[in-house]
Amino acid sequence: MRIVIDAMGGDHAPEEIVKGAIQARNEFDIDITLVGDRERILKVLTAEKADESKFQIIHTTEIISNNESPTLAIRRKKDSSMVVGMRLLKEGKGDAFISAGSTGAILAGGLFIVGRIKGIDRPALAPVLPGKNGPFMLMDAGANAECKTQNILQFGIMGNIYSKKVLSKANPKVGLVNIGSEEEKGTEFTKECFKMLKESRLNFVGNVEGREIPDGNIDVVVCDGFTGNVILKVFEGVAQTIFDILKEEIMSSARTKIGGLLLKPVFRKFKKKFDYTEHGGAILLGVDGTVIKAHGSSNAKAIKNAIKQAVLCVRGGVVESIKEEIEGYNEING
Amino acid sequence: MRIVIDAMGGDHAPEEIVKGAIQARNEFDIDITLVGDRERILKVLTAEKADESKFQIIHTTEIISNNESPTLAIRRKKDSSMVVGMRLLKEGKGDAFISAGSTGAILAGGLFIVGRIKGIDRPALAPVLPGKNGPFMLMDAGANAECKTQNILQFGIMGNIYSKKVLSKANPKVGLVNIGSEEEKGTEFTKECFKMLKESRLNFVGNVEGREIPDGNIDVVVCDGFTGNVILKVFEGVAQTIFDILKEEIMSSARTKIGGLLLKPVFRKFKKKFDYTEHGGAILLGVDGTVIKAHGSSNAKAIKNAIKQAVLCVRGGVVESIKEEIEGYNEING
Repeated sequence: MRIVIDAMGGDHAPEEIVKGAIQARNEFDIDITLVGDRERILKVLTAEKADESKFQIIHTTEIISNNESPTLAIRRKKDSSMVVGMRLLKEGKGDAFISAGSTGAILAGGLFIVGRIKGIDRPALAPVLPGKNGPFMLMDAGANAECKTQNILQFGIMGNIYSKKVLSKANPKVGLVNIGSEEEKGTEFTKECFKMLKESRLNFVGNVEGREIPDGNIDVVVCDGFTGNVILKVFEGVAQTIFDILKEEIMSSARTKIGGLLLKPVFRKFKKKFDYTEHGGAILLGVDGTVIKAHGSSNAKAIKNAIKQAVLCVRGGVVESIKEEIEGYNEING
Repeated sequence: MRIVIDAMGGDHAPEEIVKGAIQARNEFDIDITLVGDRERILKVLTAEKADESKFQIIHTTEIISNNESPTLAIRRKKDSSMVVGMRLLKEGKGDAFISAGSTGAILAGGLFIVGRIKGIDRPALAPVLPGKNGPFMLMDAGANAECKTQNILQFGIMGNIYSKKVLSKANPKVGLVNIGSEEEKGTEFTKECFKMLKESRLNFVGNVEGREIPDGNIDVVVCDGFTGNVILKVFEGVAQTIFDILKEEIMSSARTKIGGLLLKPVFRKFKKKFDYTEHGGAILLGVDGTVIKAHGSSNAKAIKNAIKQAVLCVRGGVVESIKEEIEGYNEING
């Protein structure tokens, strides 16, 4: 299995990206292709005393930043690490592609370079989030600000497969984000989605309210990309804010500093539990290949986890299963 | 000033509601009308050694629960504490109405009994939330699952007034919930809202992403009621989940228990800072009277804070200011 990695994407590229790739190669039985500035990549490999002959390096001269139009960048920057990496995936020269770069560019590249799976109208960005009782998927988290009910059903179908194959859930629970638990709650859109999900073969457990989402009891939480993106960011923002305030307060006196020291194992355990990178990045489900968007602030460990996620996806045959399932649905529904 | 209180609404009614009313009466120079089961109210007043002659009690025989259709309940339960209380407000026999009962019934009663302010299409439910750098308003938090751009503009106008009059902000910053900071981000709806807000006389600071909301730097965060309700509940859910996990971990060993004890002042300070009831309940802005929805789980202190909020609203002339402002807007815009 060969994993293609955009060495130039993310806040700490290429250093942390390459370090994560080295760690993953030591841990998993995989081949790795690093795409980016050869000299800078080699510098990190040397500094880390890694055997550079074990890594395929594809040299590129351009980088897509967060501050440019994703669609234009994907079209024009033919020699960017992102475009070249995605082309390798498309051409079968790799089994998965990972980038911590611009989310917009990954979405655009997913559509225009990798391409959609036949029958999937809108691929979804699906992060795996830490819940109190276990990880859960939120989709779509921002690929499609506006959705049709058919898209939501497909999100459920794809999330169900990922949840089974990668998160090892036997019969994933699918829930629809809504502002009340009853079927008749919400907007015209959520009401239609409810009906469609209820009639599907999914293990649809009904509406899920914002308050229940962090419990992690619903394995696949589906909604339009606007709602999902807001949820994802509020989730991160509230957690960050709470920790910032606690940290500030703990450092404010000798007594609380000692208390903070004694609670170090608690905070460490907690951090691990609430670590967004523990289960890898956000997977772009619905494109014809395994594409993972790692967090922009990814360190080596986060990249390693994203690579692990890619390995599990490829081994589990997630993309192939989605293809089969969608074909089956389309046959049934004409 | 007379505050009318639904003594029967909320998880801890009538005990905590009446206790909160007693506390508020001792603290502020106000008259209080308690609406509900006379005997049960008297029992609490007696137990608390309060001078019952200082409270007006209006006896009612019905209660609206969370499990019934709000609209039907408001229409049919003529002798419920909610309906009778709102009628008192409407008839001028009180200056504000507070209930910790069914949100849906309060919204329905606000529309059908209290009535809208002329020119306001859709009243909004506006909780005041604790931000890292200060309290902020989120509106609409669920009164209108679907909104028009005109509604969003009116939410901004009303929030601006409340923020000035009650939260003492000199020039409140108004932000639009969106999934990116640039003007062209989001849905067709958010793009139209952006344009409308930009052209208004409000201090519109642009889009606000989910991650920034908990900072509290934007005084009035506007969005449709579906999005707002999801934000509100994710906000509460994530905070609750974090504290549940921390508590569990702190209790897991002797060392961490001692650490927890030493950090008691930190958690106390934090709890106060993140206390949803510190600034009262959610105000229903856009109806022709001061109507406040206290949290369903309100204790006496929360009720006292909701009463304080009502007092500040009435003193600040929030409803009158909204009327003037909306008239001004309507004159300008034809």
